[in-house]
Amino acid sequence: VYGYWLELKHQKRKEQELLQAAYQSEINALKAQMHPHFLFNTLNSISASVEPDNEKTRMLIAKLADTFRYSLQVSEEELIPIEDELTFLASYLDLEQERFKSRLRVLFDVDDAVRGTLIAPMLLQPLVENAIKHGITPKAIGGEVNISIQRRQGRVLVRISDTGLGVGDKPTSALLEKGIGLRNTALRIKRLYNEELRIEKNIPGGLSITFLLPILTTDEKL
Amino acid sequence: VYGYWLELKHQKRKEQELLQAAYQSEINALKAQMHPHFLFNTLNSISASVEPDNEKTRMLIAKLADTFRYSLQVSEEELIPIEDELTFLASYLDLEQERFKSRLRVLFDVDDAVRGTLIAPMLLQPLVENAIKHGITPKAIGGEVNISIQRRQGRVLVRISDTGLGVGDKPTSALLEKGIGLRNTALRIKRLYNEELRIEKNIPGGLSITFLLPILTTDEKL
Repeated sequence: VYGYWLELKHQKRKEQELLQAAYQSEINALKAQMHPHFLFNTLNSISASVEPDNEKTRMLIAKLADTFRYSLQVSEEELIPIEDELTFLASYLDLEQERFKSRLRVLFDVDDAVRGTLIAPMLLQPLVENAIKHGITPKAIGGEVNISIQRRQGRVLVRISDTGLGVGDKPTSALLEKGIGLRNTALRIKRLYNEELRIEKNIPGGLSITFLLPILTTDEKL
Repeated sequence: VYGYWLELKHQKRKEQELLQAAYQSEINALKAQMHPHFLFNTLNSISASVEPDNEKTRMLIAKLADTFRYSLQVSEEELIPIEDELTFLASYLDLEQERFKSRLRVLFDVDDAVRGTLIAPMLLQPLVENAIKHGITPKAIGGEVNISIQRRQGRVLVRISDTGLGVGDKPTSALLEKGIGLRNTALRIKRLYNEELRIEKNIPGGLSITFLLPILTTDEKL
């Protein structure tokens, strides 16, 4: 009986801790946030205040609205076609291009056969954002970001590489400890696909991030 | 012993459910989102693309950045001075004013003595947004939103009222069941201050939302 009692006491403490965690996340969710519609409405007002002949500003405003609309929509989805993720990535990169001008060069190298494959949403963009933020931004002459998605032995090989700053002499493993973005992505890929995020030095400079995905289509969801 | 065993089994099931909930919220947190810096960077690019003489568009872009910056910053805070919340509310309302033009009139009636009082962040803005969205928007001639904060018997009385659509013949209690925004605010006020959110019909039309806060200053935090 004492054994049961001890285990029960232990269980109750664990339950308390879990309740505490659940309560905390409920509190966080209750924290009022700006309603996303406010962003879209305001971007509309701003767009309307732009001179009629300034098509470029209006286009940038529209792309900003598009990227946020997409990231909101897909946060409800489990899986979406790679094609949709690439369209979103292109809008995102058009906006970054406006900021970096000629310092940022982007290359897409995507096998048409994988465009319909399903992928967890918002998996590529944080990796590209990371490459721009930590690779290209600190380098005066900028650099290139390469997004490659290919079929490889019955799976999909995703590679996001840049010719940016890189890690110099440090080991790439340090990046997983430091960067929340990379660690989150690695964790998502592990949970979702039981695959590893490989971080390697790019040649001659910068970083290369690769991971494998199963080939999933709308007919054979996880 | 059987009693212990049953309770232990029950505890273990509860723990499973709680673990599941905690896991789900971890997954949600892991869902990659657009990095907020991207919004600010892009608003900067857009602002730079605006003609030099179009001061108004640049001002609107700056206010949009301000409101988002504030809502991000205070999401980490427990309590902030009412003054800061009012500055934020003014920026937010300037942007809404641009959208609604003369259809929206805003009146602030704030006792200077309460400006330093501490309040949970983002408590007023969702109520004002609600008044605009459900009260003013559906009414062709628009209406007035009144934000009143006064000292009342050793406490702070907050009142957000509008002359908008109101609820007609329906009871105001229906709003708490329907509107997620109002229900969240009511829940926050209950949890934080153990106070009720009162929803009443405004005279001659529209709604009036009131609640009481304790007077807290930086020297005597909760």
